[in-house]
Amino acid sequence: MGSVTFETHPSRYRHWKLDVQGAVATLALDVAEDGGLEPGYALKLNSYDLAVDIELADAIQRLRFSHPEVRALVITSQRDRVFSAGANIFMLGQSSHAFKVNFCKFTNETRLHLEEMSRESGIATLAALNGTASGGGYELALACDEILLVDDGSAAVSLPEVALLGVLPGTGGLTRVVDKRRVRRDHADFFSTTAEGVRGERAAAWNLVDEVVPRSRFQARVRERAEALAARSDRPADGAGIELPPLSRQETNLGIDYRNVSLAIDRARRVATLTIRAPRDAQPARPADLGADAWAVAAWRELDDAILHLRLNEPEIGLVLLRTEGDPEAVLAVDRGLAEHRGHWLVREILLLQRRVLKRIDLTARSFYALVVPGSAFAGSLFELALAADRSYMLADAEGASTVALSPLNAGLLPTSSGLSRLAARFLGREERLRAILEHAGPFHAEQALAAGLVTFAPDELDWDEEVRLAVEERAAMNPDALTGMEASLRFVGPETLETKIFGRLSAWQNWIFTRPNATGDRGALTVYGKAGQRPEFDWRRT
Amino acid sequence: MGSVTFETHPSRYRHWKLDVQGAVATLALDVAEDGGLEPGYALKLNSYDLAVDIELADAIQRLRFSHPEVRALVITSQRDRVFSAGANIFMLGQSSHAFKVNFCKFTNETRLHLEEMSRESGIATLAALNGTASGGGYELALACDEILLVDDGSAAVSLPEVALLGVLPGTGGLTRVVDKRRVRRDHADFFSTTAEGVRGERAAAWNLVDEVVPRSRFQARVRERAEALAARSDRPADGAGIELPPLSRQETNLGIDYRNVSLAIDRARRVATLTIRAPRDAQPARPADLGADAWAVAAWRELDDAILHLRLNEPEIGLVLLRTEGDPEAVLAVDRGLAEHRGHWLVREILLLQRRVLKRIDLTARSFYALVVPGSAFAGSLFELALAADRSYMLADAEGASTVALSPLNAGLLPTSSGLSRLAARFLGREERLRAILEHAGPFHAEQALAAGLVTFAPDELDWDEEVRLAVEERAAMNPDALTGMEASLRFVGPETLETKIFGRLSAWQNWIFTRPNATGDRGALTVYGKAGQRPEFDWRRT
Repeated sequence: MGSVTFETHPSRYRHWKLDVQGAVATLALDVAEDGGLEPGYALKLNSYDLAVDIELADAIQRLRFSHPEVRALVITSQRDRVFSAGANIFMLGQSSHAFKVNFCKFTNETRLHLEEMSRESGIATLAALNGTASGGGYELALACDEILLVDDGSAAVSLPEVALLGVLPGTGGLTRVVDKRRVRRDHADFFSTTAEGVRGERAAAWNLVDEVVPRSRFQARVRERAEALAARSDRPADGAGIELPPLSRQETNLGIDYRNVSLAIDRARRVATLTIRAPRDAQPARPADLGADAWAVAAWRELDDAILHLRLNEPEIGLVLLRTEGDPEAVLAVDRGLAEHRGHWLVREILLLQRRVLKRIDLTARSFYALVVPGSAFAGSLFELALAADRSYMLADAEGASTVALSPLNAGLLPTSSGLSRLAARFLGREERLRAILEHAGPFHAEQALAAGLVTFAPDELDWDEEVRLAVEERAAMNPDALTGMEASLRFVGPETLETKIFGRLSAWQNWIFTRPNATGDRGALTVYGKAGQRPEFDWRRT
Repeated sequence: MGSVTFETHPSRYRHWKLDVQGAVATLALDVAEDGGLEPGYALKLNSYDLAVDIELADAIQRLRFSHPEVRALVITSQRDRVFSAGANIFMLGQSSHAFKVNFCKFTNETRLHLEEMSRESGIATLAALNGTASGGGYELALACDEILLVDDGSAAVSLPEVALLGVLPGTGGLTRVVDKRRVRRDHADFFSTTAEGVRGERAAAWNLVDEVVPRSRFQARVRERAEALAARSDRPADGAGIELPPLSRQETNLGIDYRNVSLAIDRARRVATLTIRAPRDAQPARPADLGADAWAVAAWRELDDAILHLRLNEPEIGLVLLRTEGDPEAVLAVDRGLAEHRGHWLVREILLLQRRVLKRIDLTARSFYALVVPGSAFAGSLFELALAADRSYMLADAEGASTVALSPLNAGLLPTSSGLSRLAARFLGREERLRAILEHAGPFHAEQALAAGLVTFAPDELDWDEEVRLAVEERAAMNPDALTGMEASLRFVGPETLETKIFGRLSAWQNWIFTRPNATGDRGALTVYGKAGQRPEFDWRRT
């Protein structure tokens, strides 16, 4: 497995065609069979691998930032009679467990980003299923606001994973069918165990799709619905989009240096240090002056790239030390500007970008410690990193030079997957304490931060080195699987949402199934799928 | 592994001493080291296996039914300086995956029953930790309303699983620490990775316990708190408890016959048929006449026993066909009586028993199909079985003799783990439809039931045999792991609770970890624990 890179551009897409016609954009899938990330499988029938999904994620991001005129997105296929066969099975069959899990995580995030784009950004989504949508293909449709299915006597929607492959649909399908589309669970049970799926009127009657439309009227109906969805949008008529250029990025064997972010890898200790620098130059004060080089955009795009790099390309790094550098006041000034102009479409997108990056950290199966020392800039949006961390250590230096500080962005503009802000989740059930903290003016010194509950530990200069060293070494020595399960349980306190259900409940079960011989053993269903004359053999014990 | 039986009686307890003194009962743990379910491990340091937990579950059930005078329960240890070391590690190390999962499920249910008993029955609970409570020992305390910890310089609470064994605390510990006790997640992170745990003032400051009390004052303070908890109870001063005699139970190699329930095992097809019969004799009309032989108690105790038998002793049965027999009107009459007198303490207990049994079905990792035919009695409380099933098939016979019917018990008196009734979960987001169904008078014939959405399919006499046969065969042929994950995802639509989080999120992660070589491989942490000179070896890839 080579190093996966997440940057691309519509001009280089091999699998999707992005077409913008006024308020309606169309993403049409035509997967290049030989365009997969790895050799060894052909992406037949519009099946996909991570390479296809990286393009989808890129297209969504660019629509948001570069095309303020777009108010609805149609996702369809360029192929006749097939929308998508879902994740490529042979790719899954040859992938390591860690890769499968991270592939599913990324594709799940992308589908949640589609839903967030509709809910928060005013770009509604329509799945135009001009042919059969199976497995991940149907799950992509489920992430859209509306699903139209062509009614031609053969096009169906299906989740064939349980029946054919012995695994779960891996991209939120089960959860969305019952929780989002409110398909009755007995119907969902039948549907999810029927390889051929459901078509025509039954698909609509069970609410698996919103409408079935004869082929002759399909394109017209898609246009009609897309325009109706676009009409509800609050996107501006006169916005000027910004281009997202390639990241400034220097990768070596020791890590990656970006303009505002550095990632340093220590493979021997299995520890990475991720440093985010506060703005050093003057930042634009007016939304109209914001561009991709503004810190609020560039630093967070870099941080996102670094997290994805860690996930896919550095699987043995178990602990990430989060550091910040620079002038906290520069971060707070940017935050205040964003909060003030948060009604502006581009500022809204910037806040949503930061929100997504922070959620990506919450969902990353690595331990995070934040280290607050003199010279660091854990303020406002960057203090969210300390709140996202599993623990934080703050040096109680004699001069009181270590500080943390809050901005309006900590008060709800960067919520977690549960819908709570990180501060609200931290002080769940202690609302008065939360209010007092939010009303505090100025920075918190170490003793104040510890007393307020903003950091976990505040060792003095005598103890700091030893305490942090021990905490790092102990963490890096524990069973990485147990840490993943523990962190997934502790990080999501309070209310559950479709989003947390997908990552907490569905993905955990899928991970379990992926490790079981019944799926991935020599005679497991996923292993033998498509191999002539081979049938899976199961250990029948139910657990 | 022999056949596990779940029936016991305080006179036969080997591990617990149940002592009732007026309003306060005490359960004191003194595990017999040689009293485990299986040979091969000694239950040292008040560690437990399923045998110990079966006694605990029995004691809770009997307190509820036989001791209306009890208003508070103290759980403590008979040992000096040790409360409980939790689940026995050597037992876990030698157990199959299926057994470990079902052991954890049963112990989790018992702890949730403690919480339900406090919330619904007026028997509050106090964990009197007179010594260290580790792992499952502390998790048992977490299931109590209050935790007092002796402050003697050594007694601690701890969750050492991640650090020492490479697995998660398996009995809800992580979820309860952050979600129930609202321990801050960074504190929880430190606590859950620190083998020696936390003691004294820090344990109280972090809310891991409610109070730390010097040894000299410990017993007095326990009595004081127990009496304060008892004072809040609404249990009657003059109730007359009922004894719970051994079940009438005939077990053969082909299944079990009870008085009101039959379980027939077809191992070749991996299918069981579970039949529940409606009352055949006159049932008591007044609460004062209710006894353990009343159908509303006896049939449901039998059903509970049958479900537990399936889980532990028939691991290869993948599909359970739920059938009922008898006069639906007899069920409805019993239900109406229970609903009318639901304020009576004993009626309340009976409804809670039925609720727990139905939840046990929701949480059983087997597929369930309900079969509604002429002569069946899917009415009221027994109709909950059809709603709990993954699907239902109703024979649309020419005479219209197949019926289903509702009673007041379907309208919220038997809620699921999510807090919704099964009907409300089925019609989530369709409240008007739910209301119309609840207002329907009289039975539903097959066409009506299908139209109302009360059953999944209603084949006629020509199609019935073939359709049911195919559905049974197909289900029994699928990967049992995938079915478990699918059912766990589809069965719990709507809101999540501490209870669904424990079974959905935490248990799924634990199952995954239990299958991973890092825990249970030859050099896994659980496998080598306690073996001199052996240290675990980990695959460091994080997922």
